[in-house]
Amino acid sequence: MPESEAYECTPRNTVNRLKQRATYDYETVHSIINSAPVVHVSFNPTSFEDDPFPTILPMLGCTGSFTPPEASETSATAVYLHGHSASRFMKLPSSPNSPHAVEGLPGVPVCVAATQMDGLVLALTPFNHSCNYRSAVVHGYAHAVTDPEEKNYALELITDSIIPSRWENSRVPPTPAEIASTGVLRVDIVSASAKIRAYGAGNDKADLADEEMRKRVWTGVVPAYIRYGEPVPADENLVGEVPGYVGGWIKEQNEVGEKYSREVTKFKAPKKT
Amino acid sequence: MPESEAYECTPRNTVNRLKQRATYDYETVHSIINSAPVVHVSFNPTSFEDDPFPTILPMLGCTGSFTPPEASETSATAVYLHGHSASRFMKLPSSPNSPHAVEGLPGVPVCVAATQMDGLVLALTPFNHSCNYRSAVVHGYAHAVTDPEEKNYALELITDSIIPSRWENSRVPPTPAEIASTGVLRVDIVSASAKIRAYGAGNDKADLADEEMRKRVWTGVVPAYIRYGEPVPADENLVGEVPGYVGGWIKEQNEVGEKYSREVTKFKAPKKT
Repeated sequence: MPESEAYECTPRNTVNRLKQRATYDYETVHSIINSAPVVHVSFNPTSFEDDPFPTILPMLGCTGSFTPPEASETSATAVYLHGHSASRFMKLPSSPNSPHAVEGLPGVPVCVAATQMDGLVLALTPFNHSCNYRSAVVHGYAHAVTDPEEKNYALELITDSIIPSRWENSRVPPTPAEIASTGVLRVDIVSASAKIRAYGAGNDKADLADEEMRKRVWTGVVPAYIRYGEPVPADENLVGEVPGYVGGWIKEQNEVGEKYSREVTKFKAPKKT
Repeated sequence: MPESEAYECTPRNTVNRLKQRATYDYETVHSIINSAPVVHVSFNPTSFEDDPFPTILPMLGCTGSFTPPEASETSATAVYLHGHSASRFMKLPSSPNSPHAVEGLPGVPVCVAATQMDGLVLALTPFNHSCNYRSAVVHGYAHAVTDPEEKNYALELITDSIIPSRWENSRVPPTPAEIASTGVLRVDIVSASAKIRAYGAGNDKADLADEEMRKRVWTGVVPAYIRYGEPVPADENLVGEVPGYVGGWIKEQNEVGEKYSREVTKFKAPKKT
């Protein structure tokens, strides 16, 4: 893969444990973030001296690249996040006393993690138990998005990342009050990596040689995926049937999730010694 | 609820946005952590000056309280995490140059977050879109567990948090090599909170007054839960049938998850103005 299509390996993002599960290419990292319904965002609300604990917020977010009106260039891919404009996190980029401002950094240093759990891996011994998963971790500087065009782009993007085409099928455009009370952050990516486990149980030779134990201990994988149920209309709903863009998407997500979680169990784990 | 059964509210853990969704009681916080198959753990690998980015690791973990042999007192509830003993995070508590050591803190300051996504909330306008979810965030000091009894307790606890009774039904005890290459961290909880959204779509009065729009825009909730599929035995598996403690647990988890995600959609969202 050409270097331009992957994140550079630096000490921050290089996976040290189980390197064979790691990848740095844009497509894998971005697709994991965009297929996770919830991402976890970590940041330091204050300086280490004031409070040494980083914090984590579960948020809705996705990747995107904005092309300003009349511009020929589209920006690099970033992670867009949103929240109430009065929340602590949304106000942090413009806070003059926050650690990043004091240190003259270009934005709030954050980490965005997205994880899909694809199955429980039951090996013969607890030591070899694991999960099948797809995990992406991104580090970058978060900025408040103030440009109205970019903010609108991000809100449409995030809404459609919940269910494709939802934006145009809902009551849009947002009112000025709605726009004002929604904060959008753009995380400009500095480094990123993905880690994937997608195979059956890995057992040690010594355990496989113990046939008596193997007749007693079940080993294999329990596939897992996010299942979307039958949509439940609100009492106030006036649309007779569930629209195709909702129903069709649910059907597709369930089929893809079920199939992926089952099929990866058939791949062989790397040989153990 | 008596104060002793809830985490104290401090500036760190007090939920400021949508306070009505917040709770601090032990049982809620702990049950969310223990029912999430994966938790996200955030920490600062170095000082802010060396690298300002916190990082996040997806991990397996759960809450527990250890009673040392011959002791009458059980420790306070902590979060137990495990990983390879050679990993950066597992080595951090005993690193003399890490920020917590330099500052004389009792352990590595970490944040543990667990989130269950229970449904996609499709309101009339994108602004009111949301998710149903159960989220717990814990802050605490991470310590390496070196006592063999406590380490064994934690490994059994974590294994059984994947599937109950798995420990006693697998090849145990672990070998000395397995024990040596597994690191266990205990996070002594300093503050914690939980946030839950468990109801139908919330729509604004102005939108509900627009009947023409409401005939066009579907509103309601798409329930979601983790679905566990039919277990796939490894080629090396010699056990004829899926054991009851696995099959029964899968059936129960799927029923509970499906039912919860559907039933909460029937509760009314708090009134909007």
